[in-house]
Amino acid sequence: MIKILEYGKDQNQEIFSRGSLETSSVYEIVSDIIKDVKLNKDKALKFYAEKFDGVVLDKLEVTSEEFEEAFSLVDEELIETIKKAEGNIRFFHEKQFRVGFKMEKEDGVILGQKISPIENVGLYVPGGTASYPSTVLMDAVPAKIAGCSNIVMVTPPMKNGKVNPAILVASKIAGVDRVFKIGGAQAIGALAYGTESVPKVDKIVGPGNIFVAEAKRQVFGLVAIDVIAGPSEILIVADKDNNAKHIACDLLSQAEHDKMASAVLVTNSMDFAKEVQKEIEIELEKLSRKDIARISIDNNGKIIVCDNLDVAIEISNAVAPEHLELCVNEPFKYLEKVKHAGSVFLGKNCPEALGDYYAGPNHTLPTNGAARFSSPLSVDDFVKKTQFIYYTEKALANSCKEVERFANAEGLTAHARSATVRGER
Amino acid sequence: MIKILEYGKDQNQEIFSRGSLETSSVYEIVSDIIKDVKLNKDKALKFYAEKFDGVVLDKLEVTSEEFEEAFSLVDEELIETIKKAEGNIRFFHEKQFRVGFKMEKEDGVILGQKISPIENVGLYVPGGTASYPSTVLMDAVPAKIAGCSNIVMVTPPMKNGKVNPAILVASKIAGVDRVFKIGGAQAIGALAYGTESVPKVDKIVGPGNIFVAEAKRQVFGLVAIDVIAGPSEILIVADKDNNAKHIACDLLSQAEHDKMASAVLVTNSMDFAKEVQKEIEIELEKLSRKDIARISIDNNGKIIVCDNLDVAIEISNAVAPEHLELCVNEPFKYLEKVKHAGSVFLGKNCPEALGDYYAGPNHTLPTNGAARFSSPLSVDDFVKKTQFIYYTEKALANSCKEVERFANAEGLTAHARSATVRGER
Repeated sequence: MIKILEYGKDQNQEIFSRGSLETSSVYEIVSDIIKDVKLNKDKALKFYAEKFDGVVLDKLEVTSEEFEEAFSLVDEELIETIKKAEGNIRFFHEKQFRVGFKMEKEDGVILGQKISPIENVGLYVPGGTASYPSTVLMDAVPAKIAGCSNIVMVTPPMKNGKVNPAILVASKIAGVDRVFKIGGAQAIGALAYGTESVPKVDKIVGPGNIFVAEAKRQVFGLVAIDVIAGPSEILIVADKDNNAKHIACDLLSQAEHDKMASAVLVTNSMDFAKEVQKEIEIELEKLSRKDIARISIDNNGKIIVCDNLDVAIEISNAVAPEHLELCVNEPFKYLEKVKHAGSVFLGKNCPEALGDYYAGPNHTLPTNGAARFSSPLSVDDFVKKTQFIYYTEKALANSCKEVERFANAEGLTAHARSATVRGER
Repeated sequence: MIKILEYGKDQNQEIFSRGSLETSSVYEIVSDIIKDVKLNKDKALKFYAEKFDGVVLDKLEVTSEEFEEAFSLVDEELIETIKKAEGNIRFFHEKQFRVGFKMEKEDGVILGQKISPIENVGLYVPGGTASYPSTVLMDAVPAKIAGCSNIVMVTPPMKNGKVNPAILVASKIAGVDRVFKIGGAQAIGALAYGTESVPKVDKIVGPGNIFVAEAKRQVFGLVAIDVIAGPSEILIVADKDNNAKHIACDLLSQAEHDKMASAVLVTNSMDFAKEVQKEIEIELEKLSRKDIARISIDNNGKIIVCDNLDVAIEISNAVAPEHLELCVNEPFKYLEKVKHAGSVFLGKNCPEALGDYYAGPNHTLPTNGAARFSSPLSVDDFVKKTQFIYYTEKALANSCKEVERFANAEGLTAHARSATVRGER
């Protein structure tokens, strides 16, 4: 059963604890796999496909026949839903598209910033129990809007050597260029170094297990990565004027993801807390993933009872949750007080699942308190900036002395001289 | 002497090689230091200050008396130059400040994105031969503009237990809140975990040696970091209508940084290449850091002669240089063709040193080809985004079926049910 804690009475440490992902234990195994892929390329990838995924692959890339087959296997209504979701995601993310700037100063000095797409990006899409076509949309659509020219996706093959058809359908709808049947640390190594089949990319995004997370850490610098994703989490701030069943279902929607997931409710009513606790027990039994949700709720679930909603927001800011539901009457008023959160679901008609699939904002979000310093995946993640500086002869002459003085103070006489010699003409 | 290579004739591999920073060799020593700092906090920091910096420190934080002393030790003209530079840097970076957005859709749906400052940031400023007050300005000013509330700086102490006074002056002018006399992997550990004296931060930025780079890699995820900085580099595209001495000095200004630094000239004239080669030898002798510059020029320096300026830009795009000078007659025309570069210096009056100190754009830039996927340090690096979603009852009713269908396709029945139960009322 989910725990009920009273804020201020129970230990705050317990209130703020949550599951996190410590990857250093797999440092060496991951390092060895990456070295192997760097050296042996496709051969190593096929070796690991057999070893870890249990399939012998002749060809690593998904063929156009396999794409056609996928469209024939997926329910037509689902294809329509995926298309509608893609449209909503595109609509929201297009607003994030930015252009550079150019400013002219006195003396004809021109300064500016160009924004251009990252050319080659790799999307990691997990396989197994967590195979989500929605993640394909969330990762690929912003890359497409940014203007990335090569969007490559990797995902582990199923036991039959195929990729989940809904994943393939989503990748086609979102505009992914090529898909490879590789997963784990070996897929990250392949994207970072390139192999005979798999092109080297500039940036790798997407969630994965502990091996994928550690591999991303190790190739960071050689390529860009998004974040090291930890277990998913929700914090719901709800007053007593809510339907306890709705809140219980929202908590469970997080808990069913993974045994390490955290579902937390913060409320100003002990009666409501008890109602939700009861509803969770009723609803839990109805779920197909009830075994996972049970462990998550019992181990990491919490209902925190505090004095009022302002305190609830303080608690939320201290947690910096990935998902935050503000199930209150004036949600925009409380939104102003939210300092750290990945995605905020406002009001009583906005279950997290709406954002997971459909509303348009991204569902790849900062976990484990990273909302303090990082952001939902966005078009910004698929572009990079280039600064530029233009000086006229006169402007340079006016600045020479300052540059020389600063450079000499740092002991960098060649820097100083590069200004001086231009003044000498 | 700097090498001259002919593009298309000499091996392209040699043309594109450059120094890079491989940090895995110090994985364990860094991991041990970080664990020690996490556990023993200030005591560990003092131990390493004695061991690595050779000083016994009673207090880790720079006092207000030490700041006053620093202002009395630094030349007044230099203080004025630092202030002017700060003004220029502020002017450019203020243009990068962004606000969020809010959009209303049909059925009363509201979607948006809030942008808020990262609260606590740590700036790493190297000590030793590479102690640069300019870096303090470049790192702190964008943080200040972003609105970060606590800007903490760390830098290794000198043998006398003090911090370089120009560094302290720059930190005060730029608005740094607190300065600590700690460096190396131990400083990164302190910022990531916090100690009795040093506050835990949310993000760490700034260049450092191999231990600092590896430490940043290890704490990445717990906190945000900027990039893993490698050796500095310049690529100059210059036609023959340039003063060979100017170009030679610009190449040397990069070479004097560090033995691993790369200085590369790409030109369409063999005669000009030879002139620059000769000028480098003349100018090199005049430098206070000639021993460093000599090694850098001989080992990593290159002049590449190619057919025309369009090919020169192609070469530059393949290199993705940190600094790019376009010493040509129509620099803005060629800027349009630049795909990957950190900072571009346009025309014949714009030596790199102007951007290193004074023009305003940032000098913390992507090295070692990272301009393919990352950007100059900017205000964007000190903010994070929060998405928000608001749905009305009607809008939710209109979307319920789609959410249920998508969730069920992913096998996430609790997600589906969180939508269903709201439709049932």
